[in-house]
Amino acid sequence: MKLYTYYRSQASFRVRIALNLKGLQREDVYLHLEKGDQFAADYKALNPQMVVPTLIDGDVKLFQSLAILEYLDEKYPEPPLLPADPAARAWVRGFALINIADSHPLIVPRIRHYLLEDLKLTQDQLLGWIRHWMGAGLAAMEALLAEHRESGRYCHGDAPTTADIGLVTQVTPAKTFGADLAPYPRVMRIYDSCMAIPAFADAQPAKQPDAE
Amino acid sequence: MKLYTYYRSQASFRVRIALNLKGLQREDVYLHLEKGDQFAADYKALNPQMVVPTLIDGDVKLFQSLAILEYLDEKYPEPPLLPADPAARAWVRGFALINIADSHPLIVPRIRHYLLEDLKLTQDQLLGWIRHWMGAGLAAMEALLAEHRESGRYCHGDAPTTADIGLVTQVTPAKTFGADLAPYPRVMRIYDSCMAIPAFADAQPAKQPDAE
Repeated sequence: MKLYTYYRSQASFRVRIALNLKGLQREDVYLHLEKGDQFAADYKALNPQMVVPTLIDGDVKLFQSLAILEYLDEKYPEPPLLPADPAARAWVRGFALINIADSHPLIVPRIRHYLLEDLKLTQDQLLGWIRHWMGAGLAAMEALLAEHRESGRYCHGDAPTTADIGLVTQVTPAKTFGADLAPYPRVMRIYDSCMAIPAFADAQPAKQPDAE
Repeated sequence: MKLYTYYRSQASFRVRIALNLKGLQREDVYLHLEKGDQFAADYKALNPQMVVPTLIDGDVKLFQSLAILEYLDEKYPEPPLLPADPAARAWVRGFALINIADSHPLIVPRIRHYLLEDLKLTQDQLLGWIRHWMGAGLAAMEALLAEHRESGRYCHGDAPTTADIGLVTQVTPAKTFGADLAPYPRVMRIYDSCMAIPAFADAQPAKQPDAE
């Protein structure tokens, strides 16, 4: 498989974790999002949204991290990223979407650039924006974990799922941008459990060959 | 089933469409997001993220619209919201996520309030923000439809899928906020196909009992 990726991209991070968990080999193609590699004509032809990641599996072109996670789980089912029961699957997906849909898209490079360059925000205002929305997602995750009987070492059950992938890619940028993580002890306990697993640790931004 | 909903919520709109397509009856509980009903203690206990929709199916509590769509498709499979082939399912999910993850979360009430009240944007700047991000998503959708051989009357195949639900809830707010839709003829053709179906038309914001 070929993964078009950027080390700091949390969406690429999600896909790297899933590929590692399933023991799938990949070849990385690095795009530097701050230098605008994603806007090049050849990449736009591959990914019209001009975002990472894009994953190529044989003749299948895949985009959007959650769609890629679902595909990998259907095509390469072991170990599973989702539990078997529909209600449990919904909880895991819903938890992950707090990161994937409602938090992370608010702080990606294109949004930060628009806020700074088009709306002329100060760096302090930008940092406030990032911390506010990552915090809102973390607070929701903490509350959901508190009421979820199947949470413990991981978000749901005895092995990492898509929910844990979403939790990790919520915490990582929150740390990078200096959010206060003390109010989220359940989240942080699970973050630590996950990052003790090589599939997660090896996928983190700082460990990528294109990290600066 | 019981749906906690707000007529203007595009996420609630998605779930209403899916329930209608599958012929599932529901009882609506209306929250007025602009009046802050979602922040009431009893709703926060139900949905810690304080957003709509929440769907109750028997003793199962469901949150996040895409997780709800997946649950409904697993529990009530007919008619399906996703095709059978993993690659096709990934395309449909990826297409829908352009709306669900990368466009719509940028313009929901909590974001608009933060932009106006905390960052002191003008109404013109807010409108520019909304049109910019809805347009970016529409442009990506138009390009994906142009290259996708299975698109035609609907995004993929001969019947509506989750992709069409994401397309409709991308176009509806774009129309509401006055975005230029002329550059997206494929998107608009499919929007018209969908809105000719009662399951879609009956679910639209203006047709809800709580519409103002």
